[in-house]
Amino acid sequence: MTLHPGPAALGRRRALDSAPLLVAARGGAPSRLPVWFMRQAGRSLPEYRALRAGTSMLAACLTPELVCEITLQPVRRHGVDAAILFSDIVVPLYAAGVGVDIVPGTGPVLAEPVRTLADVQRLPSLHPGQVAPVTDAIALLLSELDDTPLIGFAGAPFTLASYVVEGGPSRNHERTKALMRRSPEVWHALMDRLATVTETFLRVQVAAGVDAVQLFDSWAGALSERDYRHYVLPYSARVLGGLAEAGVPRIHFGVGTGELLGAMAEAGADVVGVDWRVPLDVAARRIGGTLAVQGNLDPAVLFADPASIEAEARRIADEGRRAPGHVFNLGHGVLPETDPDVLTRLVELVHGLSP
Amino acid sequence: MTLHPGPAALGRRRALDSAPLLVAARGGAPSRLPVWFMRQAGRSLPEYRALRAGTSMLAACLTPELVCEITLQPVRRHGVDAAILFSDIVVPLYAAGVGVDIVPGTGPVLAEPVRTLADVQRLPSLHPGQVAPVTDAIALLLSELDDTPLIGFAGAPFTLASYVVEGGPSRNHERTKALMRRSPEVWHALMDRLATVTETFLRVQVAAGVDAVQLFDSWAGALSERDYRHYVLPYSARVLGGLAEAGVPRIHFGVGTGELLGAMAEAGADVVGVDWRVPLDVAARRIGGTLAVQGNLDPAVLFADPASIEAEARRIADEGRRAPGHVFNLGHGVLPETDPDVLTRLVELVHGLSP
Repeated sequence: MTLHPGPAALGRRRALDSAPLLVAARGGAPSRLPVWFMRQAGRSLPEYRALRAGTSMLAACLTPELVCEITLQPVRRHGVDAAILFSDIVVPLYAAGVGVDIVPGTGPVLAEPVRTLADVQRLPSLHPGQVAPVTDAIALLLSELDDTPLIGFAGAPFTLASYVVEGGPSRNHERTKALMRRSPEVWHALMDRLATVTETFLRVQVAAGVDAVQLFDSWAGALSERDYRHYVLPYSARVLGGLAEAGVPRIHFGVGTGELLGAMAEAGADVVGVDWRVPLDVAARRIGGTLAVQGNLDPAVLFADPASIEAEARRIADEGRRAPGHVFNLGHGVLPETDPDVLTRLVELVHGLSP
Repeated sequence: MTLHPGPAALGRRRALDSAPLLVAARGGAPSRLPVWFMRQAGRSLPEYRALRAGTSMLAACLTPELVCEITLQPVRRHGVDAAILFSDIVVPLYAAGVGVDIVPGTGPVLAEPVRTLADVQRLPSLHPGQVAPVTDAIALLLSELDDTPLIGFAGAPFTLASYVVEGGPSRNHERTKALMRRSPEVWHALMDRLATVTETFLRVQVAAGVDAVQLFDSWAGALSERDYRHYVLPYSARVLGGLAEAGVPRIHFGVGTGELLGAMAEAGADVVGVDWRVPLDVAARRIGGTLAVQGNLDPAVLFADPASIEAEARRIADEGRRAPGHVFNLGHGVLPETDPDVLTRLVELVHGLSP
């Protein structure tokens, strides 16, 4: 399928060429230090909780008006430099017809875990029409978002694989790690299929007009670099490589990935997301010194006093200046109990720290 | 209090001088590659589950006969090169009179979380007599263990601090991280007190005759190196430094600590434990090339096929040979669903890989 949005979205993209997020992602000199927050749309906002009352997560992710409104809430409230499409890692699987539900307090739970070649072969493909509500949501968002870029979103193949193999969230991923070694043919068939699902889902978003994409490999940090390179990197590389010609910045992130930063950059990112464990200047060197970095304030620090938050933000801005480009963000998603006013003040502070 | 055990235990320690674990820990050439497993005593063994039926975790940890038998079970079954005292991180707090319970399926839960200076000042000290059952258990163990070293055990101050501040297990440690920044005087008072508790608990074990100690900083990997050095290292260093004159090897371990290995070595370890994310030869370089390493088979790999387990064990033994000393272990604790026969076969295999 085409990666090219229609003339209206293309015109918008051209008009956004100087948006701080997109300039920083390309390693240029943005007019201000861009900042957004992973999970900025969601549980920390009372207006989100009010809007979601009575609607399941997956239903919300596939209702264009809700996706649009939830995506816009943090942009209005905080004045961040990017909107990120409200979605969930399992949305493309659910849309394709996989039996999966997001159980509050638990996370995604699969009706039938995938563990054999026959299970893999039964996994449906994703057809673009099945995520039409996401296309529609993006169209609504593009008409509402003025000069704020919209970031598309998908879970990476390994993270999807862990959910489908374990049947739900897993602390140790033992079934997943056993499968890759015990049955490499099943593993590679599964990753091939999931990479195609992820690629289709991101291509739909790019064709609908998103200005950047983020590939979330939530669980990649559970792997050694050796295993990541052998069992995972080729599939994430296919997803990211398949988007190269679209020309939108590709952000690649996982938590606890200090050992994997180089490999995750090699997979084909324009921006590598970094958690709080690795200083941004160190991360920039690990990824070869040519790519932009995103991060990396510890989300737990938002529970500290204003002076401590400011000191951390200043340190991060300083370290980020030593990278070829820096998008300010947290080192992981906004925690549900975060005071939204703290986020709003942080955006102001970060804008004041611009080079 | 004294660090010197009585003549019987001292005589035993001298007789153990050539035990592979102790030789490897000191960087010598052991007669075989020593191997033991974190959490080898516990939930993976049916004989453990049978013995624990009807007894709470904390009661079991303070019943000398149960501690002795549970500690011996994996030594008998697997033929490992070390016994590790069956205990729990919160045992010294509980023994000191802190209101804490280990809730099955959850973990340690505190009756009253510690968040103010007054809370810290109410924390009781640990008097050696309060852990007399542990002293008694060690005496029983020394009379039962022939030429197998016994490793003592304590949780590090930061990990204890996270439990007492959060009130229980925490994924993100936000209250703990906020406290260290928001109220440094409370934080340092708390860490000072917890370091004293940990030190007392380990000194009791050393005086009772354990042959080595392991300081577990389960949650240290949640911190950046910068925060670890500022808020944590001085206290772990006090604990480890206080044991130096005892002359027993000190093992220092935390999971997800790739960025902290150098700092954890500086805290005063003889052996640094490494999880599966960092190859042992790389870890050995990060800690300065002079200390032994312990690790680092991914516990999830034990769910794979025998050929894969063997390949991983061989690779780890090869990488460990490039360190000044190597104690074979997992990169984290034995997972509860692990087949104990797999562990037994792994011990045989590792012994066959001796240099």
